Amino acid sequence: MFVNPLARRDLIGIDDLSKDEIVFLLDLGNRFEETIGRTRVMDLLHGFQLATLFYEPSTRTRLSFESAMQRLGGQVLSVADARTASSAAKGESIADAARVVATYADILVQRHPAIGSAQEAADAVEIPVINAGDGAGEHPTQALLDLYTIWKEKGRLDHVTIAMVGDLKHGRTVHSLSKALACWKDHLILVSPPALKMDSHLVAYLGQKGAQVTETDDLQLAINEADVLYVTRIQRERFSDPEEYLRLRGSYTINRALLAARPDLTVMHPLPRVDEIATDVDSLPNAAYFRQANNGVWARMALLAALLDRLP
Amino acid sequence: MFVNPLARRDLIGIDDLSKDEIVFLLDLGNRFEETIGRTRVMDLLHGFQLATLFYEPSTRTRLSFESAMQRLGGQVLSVADARTASSAAKGESIADAARVVATYADILVQRHPAIGSAQEAADAVEIPVINAGDGAGEHPTQALLDLYTIWKEKGRLDHVTIAMVGDLKHGRTVHSLSKALACWKDHLILVSPPALKMDSHLVAYLGQKGAQVTETDDLQLAINEADVLYVTRIQRERFSDPEEYLRLRGSYTINRALLAARPDLTVMHPLPRVDEIATDVDSLPNAAYFRQANNGVWARMALLAALLDRLP
Amino acid sequence: MFVNPLARRDLIGIDDLSKDEIVFLLDLGNRFEETIGRTRVMDLLHGFQLATLFYEPSTRTRLSFESAMQRLGGQVLSVADARTASSAAKGESIADAARVVATYADILVQRHPAIGSAQEAADAVEIPVINAGDGAGEHPTQALLDLYTIWKEKGRLDHVTIAMVGDLKHGRTVHSLSKALACWKDHLILVSPPALKMDSHLVAYLGQKGAQVTETDDLQLAINEADVLYVTRIQRERFSDPEEYLRLRGSYTINRALLAARPDLTVMHPLPRVDEIATDVDSLPNAAYFRQANNGVWARMALLAALLDRLP
Repeated sequence: MFVNPLARRDLIGIDDLSKDEIVFLLDLGNRFEETIGRTRVMDLLHGFQLATLFYEPSTRTRLSFESAMQRLGGQVLSVADARTASSAAKGESIADAARVVATYADILVQRHPAIGSAQEAADAVEIPVINAGDGAGEHPTQALLDLYTIWKEKGRLDHVTIAMVGDLKHGRTVHSLSKALACWKDHLILVSPPALKMDSHLVAYLGQKGAQVTETDDLQLAINEADVLYVTRIQRERFSDPEEYLRLRGSYTINRALLAARPDLTVMHPLPRVDEIATDVDSLPNAAYFRQANNGVWARMALLAALLDRLP
Repeated sequence: MFVNPLARRDLIGIDDLSKDEIVFLLDLGNRFEETIGRTRVMDLLHGFQLATLFYEPSTRTRLSFESAMQRLGGQVLSVADARTASSAAKGESIADAARVVATYADILVQRHPAIGSAQEAADAVEIPVINAGDGAGEHPTQALLDLYTIWKEKGRLDHVTIAMVGDLKHGRTVHSLSKALACWKDHLILVSPPALKMDSHLVAYLGQKGAQVTETDDLQLAINEADVLYVTRIQRERFSDPEEYLRLRGSYTINRALLAARPDLTVMHPLPRVDEIATDVDSLPNAAYFRQANNGVWARMALLAALLDRLP
Repeated sequence: MFVNPLARRDLIGIDDLSKDEIVFLLDLGNRFEETIGRTRVMDLLHGFQLATLFYEPSTRTRLSFESAMQRLGGQVLSVADARTASSAAKGESIADAARVVATYADILVQRHPAIGSAQEAADAVEIPVINAGDGAGEHPTQALLDLYTIWKEKGRLDHVTIAMVGDLKHGRTVHSLSKALACWKDHLILVSPPALKMDSHLVAYLGQKGAQVTETDDLQLAINEADVLYVTRIQRERFSDPEEYLRLRGSYTINRALLAARPDLTVMHPLPRVDEIATDVDSLPNAAYFRQANNGVWARMALLAALLDRLP
């Protein structure tokens, strides 16, 4: 008999999931994508309620979860901006807030600016808790949808060379994704200005997990060699010198001309994009970032169904 | 075979709709009003998701669309205040935000303070986009529900004399409605202080479309002659001289005494009302403004079903 | 034939309900609790729409109502922060806003900081209105869920000694609950610092209704004698002298040691809790405050079904 290994669990960091569990979720997401294309909506989570508790507003992530829940037939209790709620203003703890919401809902998706806040909620309640971002910590469902996208675009997760470009020091998206890709012993090309390099401890950890890691500040090299180009934003507030910021931002901007020789190079971005990818790239067949956003719904449907133990 | 002329289209401005298409929508709204009175809810849009993306909060318009969607059996993804979302704060374009939301939903209703913002979203996505207000631009579903109200209250849309009162220079509601009424070659009496007169280009355009236009600052004349009195707010911030504002506001305030001789004069207002209609008018049988708000649900049900091509 | 005494009524203050009507609602809530445990969701309010109109954000109360509505098969139109809506900013009255929302929904739950605001809404519309807090006024559904909790924890509502602790002068929760308990002629021990005593008119009213009232500032006495300890917050802003505040807050803090001799003493709190109950109390079997939050859903399901006249 099949036993769902994810039933009633939390998802706080991507390392909570084994390689097999990730594959299980991607397969399940793919089944949902194929089924919903025909049926529009399923009845799997009828009678279940998802609470989205966002202490930082994030339209994108919140709506993606809510869309996933509704397509599975479930219902949504939505807190778009928990900071303004009287209880938070009065000094209620994360644990207490989660305990109360857990009396209304069957599963909790939380975003909060403090590292560790998702674990704090998960420790307080019996219902499954999904971390939708805890500051500089983790954002594991972003990694899931990124993996789903690579798998769908490339047809495989092993033997892939992924170049990650931008701020690799602060970007939690890149941290979670690189940890997951290391399970497949992929080749990671880390492209960043020296001041925004990935933390050396994380690089070492990726190597231990089996990834082949190349660090460089040469974007052209990455474009030549990679199967997937994963672009992230470089934020102005990371720089004390505004001219340094402008110079660097310019040197890491992707445009159509740069990509001309590589029509098979899949371009991804966690969005929102500002100007690190020029809009002339959008219409290229290998520009995958809006498909990537769409994939968030399939990946999250899989996760919700698995944690609530209602598999099709 | 009947072909739905509105299938998969956008609605950005009221001029997007021909006279026949407007009649089609009003008839459809009326069918919904009659059906829902018996059944409470329909199954027509089961499995469809509406996203309301409001960069300016507007309880009234947002809830009216959401109520319409739910009564048709559809589901709602709601962004009550997109300005606070991190993606907007980070500088994401209207087009990108719409593209992402379009991966979650089947139809998008957007309000944004910038003229042209709705077209910008519509150009970026394949799902239907409805403009729920783009600053001083258009608000076409308000015009639709106004037409629905005139039709229901008067039994016809042609051979009607409509007096529009208040700020005809800035009010987008009045602009959209007058353009639509011109299709029926109605008589429009435009009542405003000289400083708030309707733009002469628009007046000329209305005349070209076949409307008979009378401009005046005499409210009593309008009350004597009109079939419908459409009242709008005069906003303090339009005046440099506060005394001028107070004097004018007073002279365009509708009360029960003013209406005593005209029990057949339908009084409309797009709401919210401040004090341009005294509350002693509310209980008059010909005070139609709360019925008008209700009609928003029927008109929007018709629009959602038509654009999503799920006709009863 | 059974006639539902609550059909189409409003609930503004707890005194709107007779003792029999309260018992009716608690029984109905209990039936829902037992049924939903098996079925997850009911079809009773299919096709009905609840509007939550919150001029003050309150995640807890809003989500409790929305969860209740969804579990009964109904739909929700949610306004988490009506203050930011353009109509409120433009000066729309409470009555007008309620009239408009009443054209979208079948029942209205309103929170507003002004005393009397719920009655103002109820006077304006024909659909049932539930007061979810009107400033220092009433919050009757909190009293309902408190009664439900006492009944479930103690097995009875009469012959109960309830100690209420904290700010009894300003706390609307305590006011509403004590009025309701007086119907059962219970013994109320009122424990507060002298400056935060319950208003003497209310104490006299409770006595007239049949309650036995003891006023004290001795927490230990209350712990020794009570069946239920109802703890509320003491707010810093009530004190001009910060040291006085800190001294008092400390003397009314409940911890595990204080409760050691009374394992049968049910501890309640309307939440959010800050530090007036130490977290070491949370795991005691008699710590009922999170069960109390959960009971809000059952009590509100009963109320929604009763006011909408759709009894199982």
